[in-house]
Amino acid sequence: MASKLVADCIFCRIIKGEIPSVKLLETATTFSFLDIGPLSEGHALVIPKYHAEKMHQLPDEFLADAMPVAKKIAAALGAENYNILQNNGKLAHQEVGHVHFHVIPKPNEQDGLTIGWPAKKADTEKLKELASKLKL
Amino acid sequence: MASKLVADCIFCRIIKGEIPSVKLLETATTFSFLDIGPLSEGHALVIPKYHAEKMHQLPDEFLADAMPVAKKIAAALGAENYNILQNNGKLAHQEVGHVHFHVIPKPNEQDGLTIGWPAKKADTEKLKELASKLKL
Repeated sequence: MASKLVADCIFCRIIKGEIPSVKLLETATTFSFLDIGPLSEGHALVIPKYHAEKMHQLPDEFLADAMPVAKKIAAALGAENYNILQNNGKLAHQEVGHVHFHVIPKPNEQDGLTIGWPAKKADTEKLKELASKLKL
Repeated sequence: MASKLVADCIFCRIIKGEIPSVKLLETATTFSFLDIGPLSEGHALVIPKYHAEKMHQLPDEFLADAMPVAKKIAAALGAENYNILQNNGKLAHQEVGHVHFHVIPKPNEQDGLTIGWPAKKADTEKLKELASKLKL
Protein backbone atom coordinates (compact mmCIF):
# COMPACT_ATOMS: atom_id res chain seq x y z
CA MET A 1 0.00 0.00 0.00
CA ALA A 2 1.25 3.47 -0.83
CA SER A 3 2.19 6.07 1.74
CA LYS A 4 -0.42 8.63 2.68
CA LEU A 5 0.88 11.97 3.91
CA VAL A 6 -0.99 15.20 4.52
CA ALA A 7 0.07 18.85 4.29
CA ASP A 8 -0.75 20.12 7.76
CA CYS A 9 0.86 17.47 9.98
CA ILE A 10 4.27 18.09 11.51
CA PHE A 11 5.27 14.41 11.29
CA CYS A 12 4.16 14.11 7.64
CA ARG A 13 6.28 17.18 6.92
CA ILE A 14 9.27 15.63 8.70
CA ILE A 15 8.86 12.48 6.56
CA LYS A 16 8.76 14.65 3.43
CA GLY A 17 11.87 16.53 4.56
CA GLU A 18 10.03 19.85 4.76
CA ILE A 19 10.94 20.07 8.43
CA PRO A 20 14.45 18.96 9.41
CA SER A 21 15.03 16.03 11.75
CA VAL A 22 17.94 13.92 12.93
CA LYS A 23 17.00 10.86 10.94
CA LEU A 24 17.78 7.32 12.02
CA LEU A 25 16.34 4.51 9.88
CA GLU A 26 13.98 4.81 6.94
CA THR A 27 12.15 2.01 5.11
CA ALA A 28 9.43 2.00 2.44
CA THR A 29 6.74 2.37 5.10
CA THR A 30 8.49 3.75 8.19
CA PHE A 31 10.58 6.79 9.18
CA SER A 32 12.49 7.26 12.43
CA PHE A 33 14.38 10.10 14.07
CA LEU A 34 15.65 11.37 17.41
CA ASP A 35 13.14 13.22 19.61
CA ILE A 36 14.11 16.87 20.15
CA GLY A 37 12.49 16.85 23.59
CA PRO A 38 14.02 13.57 24.82
CA LEU A 39 13.18 11.88 28.11
CA SER A 40 16.64 10.34 28.00
CA GLU A 41 19.63 10.15 25.64
CA GLY A 42 18.67 8.17 22.55
CA HIS A 43 14.90 8.77 22.84
CA ALA A 44 13.68 8.06 19.30
CA LEU A 45 10.40 8.22 17.41
CA VAL A 46 9.26 5.63 14.88
CA ILE A 47 6.47 6.84 12.61
CA PRO A 48 4.56 5.18 9.78
CA LYS A 49 4.54 6.91 6.40
CA TYR A 50 0.78 6.95 6.61
CA HIS A 51 -1.20 9.71 8.23
CA ALA A 52 -3.51 8.27 10.87
CA GLU A 53 -4.20 9.76 14.27
CA LYS A 54 -4.52 6.54 16.23
CA MET A 55 -2.92 3.12 16.09
CA HIS A 56 -6.10 1.19 15.29
CA GLN A 57 -6.61 3.35 12.17
CA LEU A 58 -3.34 2.22 10.55
CA PRO A 59 -3.22 -0.40 7.79
CA ASP A 60 -1.56 -3.60 9.05
CA GLU A 61 1.51 -3.38 6.82
CA PHE A 62 2.49 -0.03 8.32
CA LEU A 63 1.97 -1.41 11.81
CA ALA A 64 3.93 -4.56 11.01
CA ASP A 65 7.01 -2.62 9.92
CA ALA A 66 7.17 -0.28 12.92
CA MET A 67 8.38 -2.76 15.55
CA PRO A 68 11.28 -4.24 13.52
CA VAL A 69 12.49 -0.65 13.01
CA ALA A 70 12.12 0.06 16.74
CA LYS A 71 14.05 -3.14 17.44
CA LYS A 72 17.00 -2.07 15.29
CA ILE A 73 17.12 1.29 17.07
CA ALA A 74 16.91 -0.32 20.53
CA ALA A 75 19.70 -2.75 19.59
CA ALA A 76 21.89 0.06 18.20
CA LEU A 77 21.36 2.16 21.34
CA GLY A 78 22.45 -0.82 23.42
CA ALA A 79 20.07 0.11 26.23
CA GLU A 80 19.57 -2.59 28.84
CA ASN A 81 16.38 -0.98 30.04
CA TYR A 82 13.94 0.78 27.72
CA ASN A 83 10.26 1.35 27.04
CA ILE A 84 8.29 1.23 23.82
CA LEU A 85 5.30 3.52 24.15
CA GLN A 86 2.58 4.57 21.76
CA ASN A 87 -0.11 6.97 23.01
CA ASN A 88 -3.58 7.39 21.53
CA GLY A 89 -5.72 10.38 22.44
CA LYS A 90 -5.07 13.43 24.61
CA LEU A 91 -6.07 11.67 27.84
CA ALA A 92 -3.45 9.03 27.04
CA HIS A 93 -0.74 11.68 26.56
CA GLN A 94 -0.76 11.87 22.74
CA GLU A 95 0.64 15.24 21.65
CA VAL A 96 0.98 14.96 17.86
CA GLY A 97 -1.97 13.59 15.87
CA HIS A 98 0.07 11.14 13.78
CA VAL A 99 0.77 7.67 15.17
CA HIS A 100 4.24 7.48 16.69
CA PHE A 101 6.08 4.85 18.69
CA HIS A 102 8.54 6.10 21.29
CA VAL A 103 11.75 4.15 21.96
CA ILE A 104 12.82 5.48 25.36
CA PRO A 105 16.00 4.28 27.08
CA LYS A 106 15.72 4.07 30.88
CA PRO A 107 19.30 4.51 32.10
CA ASN A 108 18.36 5.36 35.70
CA GLU A 109 15.42 6.26 37.95
CA GLN A 110 15.44 9.94 37.00
CA ASP A 111 15.73 9.81 33.21
CA GLY A 112 13.41 8.15 30.75
CA LEU A 113 9.76 7.32 31.17
CA THR A 114 8.15 7.41 34.61
CA ILE A 115 5.28 4.99 34.98
CA GLY A 116 2.38 4.94 37.43
CA TRP A 117 0.73 1.52 37.74
CA PRO A 118 -2.65 1.72 39.50
CA ALA A 119 -3.41 -2.01 39.12
CA LYS A 120 -6.69 -3.50 40.29
CA LYS A 121 -7.41 -7.12 41.05
CA ALA A 122 -9.74 -8.49 38.41
CA ASP A 123 -12.68 -10.82 38.85
CA THR A 124 -12.10 -13.66 36.38
CA GLU A 125 -15.81 -14.05 35.66
CA LYS A 126 -16.04 -10.38 34.72
CA LEU A 127 -13.01 -10.73 32.45
CA LYS A 128 -14.65 -13.69 30.72
CA GLU A 129 -17.85 -11.70 30.27
CA LEU A 130 -15.91 -8.80 28.74
CA ALA A 131 -13.96 -11.11 26.42
CA SER A 132 -17.17 -12.77 25.23
CA LYS A 133 -18.57 -9.38 24.18
CA LEU A 134 -15.57 -8.29 22.10
CA LYS A 135 -15.86 -8.74 18.36
CA LEU A 136 -12.38 -9.97 17.53
CA MET B 1 9.92 -19.48 11.95
CA ALA B 2 8.65 -21.89 14.57
CA SER B 3 7.51 -20.91 18.02
CA LYS B 4 9.99 -21.22 20.85
CA LEU B 5 8.53 -21.78 24.29
CA VAL B 6 10.27 -22.71 27.52
CA ALA B 7 9.11 -24.68 30.57
CA ASP B 8 9.72 -22.21 33.38
CA CYS B 9 8.08 -19.05 32.00
CA ILE B 10 4.57 -18.09 33.10
CA PHE B 11 3.70 -16.57 29.71
CA CYS B 12 5.01 -19.59 27.78
CA ARG B 13 2.84 -21.76 30.03
CA ILE B 14 -0.20 -19.54 29.36
CA ILE B 15 0.42 -19.91 25.61
CA LYS B 16 0.61 -23.71 26.03
CA GLY B 17 -2.61 -23.68 28.05
CA GLU B 18 -0.90 -25.05 31.17
CA ILE B 19 -1.99 -21.94 33.06
CA PRO B 20 -5.51 -20.66 32.36
CA SER B 21 -6.12 -17.21 30.87
CA VAL B 22 -9.01 -15.26 29.43
CA LYS B 23 -7.90 -15.55 25.84
CA LEU B 24 -8.62 -12.94 23.20
CA LEU B 25 -6.98 -13.44 19.80
CA GLU B 26 -4.49 -16.09 18.78
CA THR B 27 -2.49 -16.32 15.54
CA ALA B 28 0.35 -18.58 14.41
CA THR B 29 2.90 -16.33 16.12
CA THR B 30 0.95 -14.33 18.72
CA PHE B 31 -1.27 -14.96 21.75
CA SER B 32 -3.34 -12.38 23.62
CA PHE B 33 -5.41 -12.34 26.79
CA LEU B 34 -6.88 -10.05 29.44
CA ASP B 35 -4.54 -8.92 32.23
CA ILE B 36 -5.64 -10.23 35.64
CA GLY B 37 -4.19 -7.13 37.33
CA PRO B 38 -5.69 -4.54 34.96
CA LEU B 39 -4.96 -0.82 35.07
CA SER B 40 -8.38 -0.29 33.49
CA GLU B 41 -11.22 -2.37 32.06
CA GLY B 42 -10.06 -4.10 28.89
CA HIS B 43 -6.32 -4.02 29.76
CA ALA B 44 -4.91 -6.75 27.51
CA LEU B 45 -1.55 -8.40 26.92
CA VAL B 46 -0.20 -9.35 23.50
CA ILE B 47 2.66 -11.85 23.63
CA PRO B 48 4.74 -13.48 20.92
CA LYS B 49 4.90 -17.27 20.84
CA TYR B 50 8.63 -17.02 21.16
CA HIS B 51 10.45 -16.83 24.46
CA ALA B 52 12.66 -13.76 24.55
CA GLU B 53 13.15 -11.47 27.50
CA LYS B 54 13.47 -8.19 25.63
CA MET B 55 11.96 -6.74 22.47
CA HIS B 56 15.24 -6.43 20.56
CA GLN B 57 15.84 -10.17 21.00
CA LEU B 58 12.70 -11.17 19.08
CA PRO B 59 12.78 -12.35 15.45
CA ASP B 60 11.16 -9.77 13.16
CA GLU B 61 8.20 -11.92 12.15
CA PHE B 62 7.05 -12.23 15.77
CA LEU B 63 7.44 -8.49 16.23
CA ALA B 64 5.61 -7.75 12.99
CA ASP B 65 2.54 -9.73 14.00
CA ALA B 66 2.16 -8.20 17.48
CA MET B 67 0.89 -4.75 16.48
CA PRO B 68 -1.84 -5.92 14.08
CA VAL B 69 -3.15 -8.11 16.93
CA ALA B 70 -2.98 -5.16 19.35
CA LYS B 71 -4.84 -3.09 16.77
CA LYS B 72 -7.72 -5.57 16.55
CA ILE B 73 -8.02 -5.60 20.34
CA ALA B 74 -7.94 -1.79 20.57
CA ALA B 75 -10.60 -1.54 17.87
CA ALA B 76 -12.81 -4.15 19.55
CA LEU B 77 -12.50 -2.39 22.92
CA GLY B 78 -13.60 0.82 21.23
CA ALA B 79 -11.40 2.92 23.49
CA GLU B 80 -10.94 6.52 22.38
CA ASN B 81 -7.87 6.90 24.52
CA TYR B 82 -5.37 4.10 25.09
CA ASN B 83 -1.68 3.33 25.46
CA ILE B 84 0.45 0.63 23.91
CA LEU B 85 3.36 -0.10 26.24
CA GLN B 86 6.17 -2.61 26.17
CA ASN B 87 8.71 -2.57 29.00
CA ASN B 88 12.24 -3.97 28.84
CA GLY B 89 14.23 -4.52 32.02
CA LYS B 90 13.38 -4.08 35.69
CA LEU B 91 14.27 -0.37 35.72
CA ALA B 92 11.78 0.10 32.89
CA HIS B 93 9.02 -1.67 34.85
CA GLN B 94 9.22 -5.12 33.21
CA GLU B 95 7.78 -7.72 35.59
CA VAL B 96 7.63 -10.91 33.52
CA GLY B 97 10.72 -11.92 31.53
CA HIS B 98 8.87 -12.68 28.29
CA VAL B 99 8.21 -9.82 25.85
CA HIS B 100 4.66 -8.48 26.23
CA PHE B 101 2.80 -5.54 24.79
CA HIS B 102 0.18 -3.92 26.99
CA VAL B 103 -3.00 -2.51 25.44
CA ILE B 104 -4.27 -0.18 28.17
CA PRO B 105 -7.51 1.80 27.76
CA LYS B 106 -7.38 5.26 29.39
CA PRO B 107 -11.03 6.03 30.18
CA ASN B 108 -10.32 8.81 32.69
CA GLU B 109 -7.52 10.46 34.67
CA GLN B 110 -7.62 7.87 37.46
CA ASP B 111 -7.70 4.60 35.55
CA GLY B 112 -5.21 3.27 33.03
CA LEU B 113 -1.56 4.15 32.68
CA THR B 114 -0.13 7.18 34.46
CA ILE B 115 2.79 8.74 32.66
CA GLY B 116 5.55 11.02 33.92
CA TRP B 117 7.30 12.94 31.14
CA PRO B 118 10.58 14.51 32.31
CA ALA B 119 11.48 15.97 28.90
CA LYS B 120 14.73 17.81 28.30
CA LYS B 121 15.51 20.21 25.51
CA ALA B 122 18.00 18.60 23.17
CA ASP B 123 21.00 20.21 21.49
CA THR B 124 20.62 19.37 17.78
CA GLU B 125 24.38 19.03 17.27
CA LYS B 126 24.55 16.46 20.07
CA LEU B 127 21.65 14.54 18.54
CA LYS B 128 23.46 14.48 15.20
CA GLU B 129 26.61 13.25 16.89
CA LEU B 130 24.68 10.47 18.63
CA ALA B 131 22.91 9.44 15.39
CA SER B 132 26.22 9.28 13.53
CA LYS B 133 27.57 6.79 16.08
CA LEU B 134 24.65 4.36 15.90
CA LYS B 135 25.12 1.28 13.77
CA LEU B 136 21.73 1.03 12.12
